[in-house]
Amino acid sequence: MRVGDLTTPALLVDAAALEANLADMARALPGQRLRPHVKAHKTTALAARQAAHGHHGFTCATVREVEGMAAAGLGADLLLANEVLDARRLGAVAATGSRVTVAIDSPETLQAAVDGGVPEVLIDVNIGLPRCGIAPGRAGELADRARATGLTVRGVMGYEGHLQLLPDPAERARLTAECTDRLLAAHADVGGDVISGGGTGTAACNTACTEIQAGSYALMDTAYTAAGLPFRQALTVLSTVVSTTAPAGEMPGWAVADAGLKAFGMDHGNPEVPGGTVWFCSDEHLTFAPDAQPVVGDRVRIVPAHIDPTVALHERMHVVDGDEVLDTWAVDLRGW
Amino acid sequence: MRVGDLTTPALLVDAAALEANLADMARALPGQRLRPHVKAHKTTALAARQAAHGHHGFTCATVREVEGMAAAGLGADLLLANEVLDARRLGAVAATGSRVTVAIDSPETLQAAVDGGVPEVLIDVNIGLPRCGIAPGRAGELADRARATGLTVRGVMGYEGHLQLLPDPAERARLTAECTDRLLAAHADVGGDVISGGGTGTAACNTACTEIQAGSYALMDTAYTAAGLPFRQALTVLSTVVSTTAPAGEMPGWAVADAGLKAFGMDHGNPEVPGGTVWFCSDEHLTFAPDAQPVVGDRVRIVPAHIDPTVALHERMHVVDGDEVLDTWAVDLRGW
Repeated sequence: MRVGDLTTPALLVDAAALEANLADMARALPGQRLRPHVKAHKTTALAARQAAHGHHGFTCATVREVEGMAAAGLGADLLLANEVLDARRLGAVAATGSRVTVAIDSPETLQAAVDGGVPEVLIDVNIGLPRCGIAPGRAGELADRARATGLTVRGVMGYEGHLQLLPDPAERARLTAECTDRLLAAHADVGGDVISGGGTGTAACNTACTEIQAGSYALMDTAYTAAGLPFRQALTVLSTVVSTTAPAGEMPGWAVADAGLKAFGMDHGNPEVPGGTVWFCSDEHLTFAPDAQPVVGDRVRIVPAHIDPTVALHERMHVVDGDEVLDTWAVDLRGW
Repeated sequence: MRVGDLTTPALLVDAAALEANLADMARALPGQRLRPHVKAHKTTALAARQAAHGHHGFTCATVREVEGMAAAGLGADLLLANEVLDARRLGAVAATGSRVTVAIDSPETLQAAVDGGVPEVLIDVNIGLPRCGIAPGRAGELADRARATGLTVRGVMGYEGHLQLLPDPAERARLTAECTDRLLAAHADVGGDVISGGGTGTAACNTACTEIQAGSYALMDTAYTAAGLPFRQALTVLSTVVSTTAPAGEMPGWAVADAGLKAFGMDHGNPEVPGGTVWFCSDEHLTFAPDAQPVVGDRVRIVPAHIDPTVALHERMHVVDGDEVLDTWAVDLRGW
């Protein structure tokens, strides 16, 4: 199949860029040093490519992601790096032979792991981002309580999410070290083999963690590219120019592509159109000022500003080499 | 089933608020005076409620919406108020007996209707929003060309989308009249029975159109509520508080709900948490400062800022009366 035959909007994955990203990261963080985060792509076929590069432990953000990874035969070591109050579906996955670990940061989430039949936990530690995670000084006490109930405590996790997109690498490294110092202090009280954390932005400087939870490196977006990371843009949204207007009087001409608010995560702002300036997005449209006048029917490959919520809006992604479609992968980890 | 039994995040529809909105709008714009836009809810079961209130023509934004509405038996008069270059799937729907009309604004989209086997068109006119639509002065010529190919031209459409959220009703009405004057001028050249346009924000003041394409009125969001429209907030996103921290020193306490960037369309900004101040959203989390300290496991009903892209992220919506789940509807018109 050719790219021109696809219905738009459609996710395109540049096969060479994806493979280069996977290979580069696997060289930097081989095997267990990387626990790829599937929330960034929500696609078991892509996770299978990460496994082919040597990573067999994965990070998930939702119960559905854990279920889907296990069903796809990728359940060797699944970490739900998130808190849940109803862990029964996780326990059911563990009962079928996949290894399932869940993050806990409170007596309530500890009890949920027990009640749900999840055998292993990590203590989630707040290391600076105001989100989940127990205060570092209280992590050891929660680990003791967890072990007293019969749970296995594998170690700690903490996410310096607020630092991922800092533009200055030196500043990013300095603040990451402050965060991981808190995580190491908690780990001294908690014990266990695992110190999990980090992301695509801090993968190179977070040397304290035993494993890095990076996800965006595989496909990338404009926000991570702006942070100067050494990965290639692998994902675009293919769209069709459905309407144009020529310049008239003082008004520049504009063009309209058929991909809008339902095709792009918008929390990092507008996507970028190569060869044009984006004016605004509507539900199913992107209005832009093109550098050179397109004709109706032209195809445009638009670069998302934030990969994770963009992927969550699509049913499938097409793996391409130029204008040839090599494969089509279901985005099969969507929903909850 | 009880609301407390639902997996979160989950869309909740307040049954009474929805029915009040549908009834109020049907009183103001009965029968064919309203052509409800399904893009706002993407749910054929909700469209069936709109049909029960007397509206049998519907507006769609995507080919998938047209296909799904026809498959659900709601194909009496479907308008794709959007431009397409490949209209074969629309033609296939028309061939099975549904009435399908497509918007055209160029020779290319005219030819696509012919090639795709779509028998009826509206001339889409640009009346002020820089998006699709032919210049008003050129609409008659395009209609002539369409009729020469054998297409039936039912009339015109034009959307004053840039005015929907203007806060001052008088200003909104004045500018809407300027837009509809352009549409009426085009209609004088085009002919046909249909003058289609408008939306929830201009439904009350757009008296020039023979039919109004409103969609958001059924479920509403914070942006339309802020514009002072007389409809009730019917949709919320149910979420669970998965982590909390008590106030400490200078730092206020915060709480974390399990609904984030993959549960809310973010182009209108953050959603609103009743009884709290939103700090930020992450992929699967919303961090907020609560007015009163919640406990882990509490449920929160969060109000989206923009209904259309929010609904597009969910597989289903639950119709509720307080804490009772009355029905569950598939959001079955997602994708393209």
